[in-house]
Amino acid sequence: MRDVAAERDERGITIRRVGVRDIHLPVRVREKSGGHARVVGTFDASVELAHYQRGTHMSRFVEILSRWSKKDVGSAEIREMLHEISTRFQARAAELRLSFKYFLTKPAPVTRIPSDLDYDCWFAGRLQEGTYEFTLGTTVPITTLCPCSKEISRHGAHSQRAHLRVSLRQREGRIIWIEDLVPLLEAQGSSALFPVLKRSDEQHVTEAAFANPKFVEDVVRDAVLALRGLDGVVRYTVECESFESIHNHNAYAYTEGEAG
Amino acid sequence: MRDVAAERDERGITIRRVGVRDIHLPVRVREKSGGHARVVGTFDASVELAHYQRGTHMSRFVEILSRWSKKDVGSAEIREMLHEISTRFQARAAELRLSFKYFLTKPAPVTRIPSDLDYDCWFAGRLQEGTYEFTLGTTVPITTLCPCSKEISRHGAHSQRAHLRVSLRQREGRIIWIEDLVPLLEAQGSSALFPVLKRSDEQHVTEAAFANPKFVEDVVRDAVLALRGLDGVVRYTVECESFESIHNHNAYAYTEGEAG
Amino acid sequence: MRDVAAERDERGITIRRVGVRDIHLPVRVREKSGGHARVVGTFDASVELAHYQRGTHMSRFVEILSRWSKKDVGSAEIREMLHEISTRFQARAAELRLSFKYFLTKPAPVTRIPSDLDYDCWFAGRLQEGTYEFTLGTTVPITTLCPCSKEISRHGAHSQRAHLRVSLRQREGRIIWIEDLVPLLEAQGSSALFPVLKRSDEQHVTEAAFANPKFVEDVVRDAVLALRGLDGVVRYTVECESFESIHNHNAYAYTEGEAG
Amino acid sequence: MRDVAAERDERGITIRRVGVRDIHLPVRVREKSGGHARVVGTFDASVELAHYQRGTHMSRFVEILSRWSKKDVGSAEIREMLHEISTRFQARAAELRLSFKYFLTKPAPVTRIPSDLDYDCWFAGRLQEGTYEFTLGTTVPITTLCPCSKEISRHGAHSQRAHLRVSLRQREGRIIWIEDLVPLLEAQGSSALFPVLKRSDEQHVTEAAFANPKFVEDVVRDAVLALRGLDGVVRYTVECESFESIHNHNAYAYTEGEAG
Repeated sequence: MRDVAAERDERGITIRRVGVRDIHLPVRVREKSGGHARVVGTFDASVELAHYQRGTHMSRFVEILSRWSKKDVGSAEIREMLHEISTRFQARAAELRLSFKYFLTKPAPVTRIPSDLDYDCWFAGRLQEGTYEFTLGTTVPITTLCPCSKEISRHGAHSQRAHLRVSLRQREGRIIWIEDLVPLLEAQGSSALFPVLKRSDEQHVTEAAFANPKFVEDVVRDAVLALRGLDGVVRYTVECESFESIHNHNAYAYTEGEAG
Repeated sequence: MRDVAAERDERGITIRRVGVRDIHLPVRVREKSGGHARVVGTFDASVELAHYQRGTHMSRFVEILSRWSKKDVGSAEIREMLHEISTRFQARAAELRLSFKYFLTKPAPVTRIPSDLDYDCWFAGRLQEGTYEFTLGTTVPITTLCPCSKEISRHGAHSQRAHLRVSLRQREGRIIWIEDLVPLLEAQGSSALFPVLKRSDEQHVTEAAFANPKFVEDVVRDAVLALRGLDGVVRYTVECESFESIHNHNAYAYTEGEAG
Repeated sequence: MRDVAAERDERGITIRRVGVRDIHLPVRVREKSGGHARVVGTFDASVELAHYQRGTHMSRFVEILSRWSKKDVGSAEIREMLHEISTRFQARAAELRLSFKYFLTKPAPVTRIPSDLDYDCWFAGRLQEGTYEFTLGTTVPITTLCPCSKEISRHGAHSQRAHLRVSLRQREGRIIWIEDLVPLLEAQGSSALFPVLKRSDEQHVTEAAFANPKFVEDVVRDAVLALRGLDGVVRYTVECESFESIHNHNAYAYTEGEAG
Repeated sequence: MRDVAAERDERGITIRRVGVRDIHLPVRVREKSGGHARVVGTFDASVELAHYQRGTHMSRFVEILSRWSKKDVGSAEIREMLHEISTRFQARAAELRLSFKYFLTKPAPVTRIPSDLDYDCWFAGRLQEGTYEFTLGTTVPITTLCPCSKEISRHGAHSQRAHLRVSLRQREGRIIWIEDLVPLLEAQGSSALFPVLKRSDEQHVTEAAFANPKFVEDVVRDAVLALRGLDGVVRYTVECESFESIHNHNAYAYTEGEAG
């Protein structure tokens, strides 16, 4: 059976990324506690394709990812997966992105009733000639309450749901846990969100947000200050998008930087 | 050239709807002022397929819709399109849905600075053996401010963006204009939304929302009361979905009814 | 603390559904084998709100759903959840929808290499004054290969990915398993899909699809015939949407019916 | 009225982008023919926020964009908008992205029946201290037919819809028209797509695709070769994502480069 993908290519063009996208698989993500969380993962995986190769064998990606979907996965395992991929494909560079919803149990602020909140998270890895880069990302929902609206109005201030999205490139060997990153980020909004809020809890979050008004600009700056205190961050991006309750469009702020 | 779709089918199953979905075309929607708005339309169109026909000729839908995309369209033209479709396909019943963003110019509440706000609207028609049903739908973004949060808190009250979605089946020959329906619905939230708000406007909408707290249940009931005053409505559905600023989930209420 | 939601309402309007939407929680779905699959569930839950009640207490939904997210869930448990909800809210009717990705392991057709494919599934329940309705839904990705294109062309025939979406209202006490429904539906396309296909597998699915051309109309009719053979179905809806490779729009067919 | 956003900030953090996102406005896009197309635009606009400023005045973005939504827009006007924004905000840098569906009329390949096909396009501009960068982007739907499947199978070959997404940074003063770019890209797939295809047209595209099998890797390389022939390109990105008809995931290839 002739293998068309294995033919020699004469166009002389190296392709940065060739691979598969939007593969859904069950995955076990390592928890800080030492166990694992069972999540539904969405994978993108690719290799660099040398100029002389016509194509990749896409089925190999799926075989490798399927095998890994039975094991616990964290930064070190993403590296192993990339090593396996680049070896199998004889590729100079390989990339992988795993996105998933991650649940953390949090107590309501007054009644302490526990419930699970979901956070969109992702692991992104790149391995090129032995150099490994790992990035952890998360989108944390928060409340923003508008400082301008509060200042100029006799009563009240508009508030809304907002997303604080952060990615952290990590120093190799250093692990930043989702369990630690999420509470740090939730503390940067006017208030955190909760699945269950009884009336005394709702009073608490309403008054807390009113006492702590923040523009998206404030959220981003305060998040940068908080991230600077984290050990092991090489590079960060921080974005806040606020689904304004008085507009049909969103306010946003984005910045990025190298950590000390 | 053999026509496979025109073959006789022996499975004995009539299919309710066979057609095309997600066709994008420029469309001119009739305005109340007598002119037309140029919008980008998304069409779904279908016919009932008799049990003895194997298939439809899908290209005919696109030909008919393409021709109509050059003319002004309202309820009467949707009827003509359905008549043309059911005749061309020799079908007992035909359906069509046209979705589009529609813009209305609105002045800011204090400074009166005008700007355009977008509303997701749709026309849905069904023609069956000469009987025509036409439904107008729209999703109007509003602010909701929580009555419970206001009542129990010393300061402030959480607010958020919400969607008030309404569909109206209309009595034949009677036209309800988007231009009339949208302001009626915007008045049912705690406040309307605006693209441009200078500081004096922002003060106004903040204080107005605080003075007018509403649950999704209130918005739906008040919308039902308002719609009852509209002449020409045969049947309505009303839904409010509120993107709660203190939760990562939404509150919603839905009801439907026959008009007097 | 005054309870605004508990106040008497004078507008005289009963609301069909009041509740929460888009709550994400980990869920254990009962498997045919007797175990459970751990999935990420998205819940919508609502009750009918009597005309004299101003509002619901939304936090109760989340409390109830959170508790159930620790147990194995199937049709019988959805009934229990609805019973608990309608009792707690003193509501005449309650509804619940749980959507999730479900994975089934399938071997490649020739090499028999196993891999997991994901199917979007949902459970929908309604309990009204003791009468329970349960509906199982699934969207199964398939290949469609166009009979017309094959007939009129000297070589080849266009094919594409399509979605076959089915919902089944079930007779009480009778369970139709996803594990049984999905293979039945996959058999109605020109070919099933697979995560891993080596070259001999790819040859197989290519030739199988070419030998089995189907319009969306054919897929829907064949699915109806197949579903008629299932014991325990009260009512079905069947829809096929095909992402045509020669157009930028989709072909679709939809029908519904009562089972014998 | 105190202006909170105008206050001095002491956190010492410059924010790369602060602005508005997802504003919908009617826009007139310059056509190659000299006229304009009326489209529905989605704008993102931002400025760099100096470390000593607490916030921006978001309403100014909307005022400026609203004014421009009445004029014909192309690369030169995006520069003017950015100049107006950076002046009004006294910002070192400003960015703007305008996304829209653009329609081109194309005749069916044999019958020559004309119909309009929609292409997702975007203009992205950045102005920093007088230096202007303008990028044109488009996503062109095409058919890919798998070379491996054709080679190894006795009959047929799987095909599917795919997206070829290209962005081109342009040399200042040089205009590349969507009207020229789209046909160039459509020629790189196994076949182009069409809204209306009668049977003789469908035969043509089926046989053309079968005679011209391409992996996503081939599409990307051929697109790079084609773009090299375009005058005025400074930098390009090229991506092809193919919605495989035999899998529930996608194949993709991405590359980027500087033009000669």
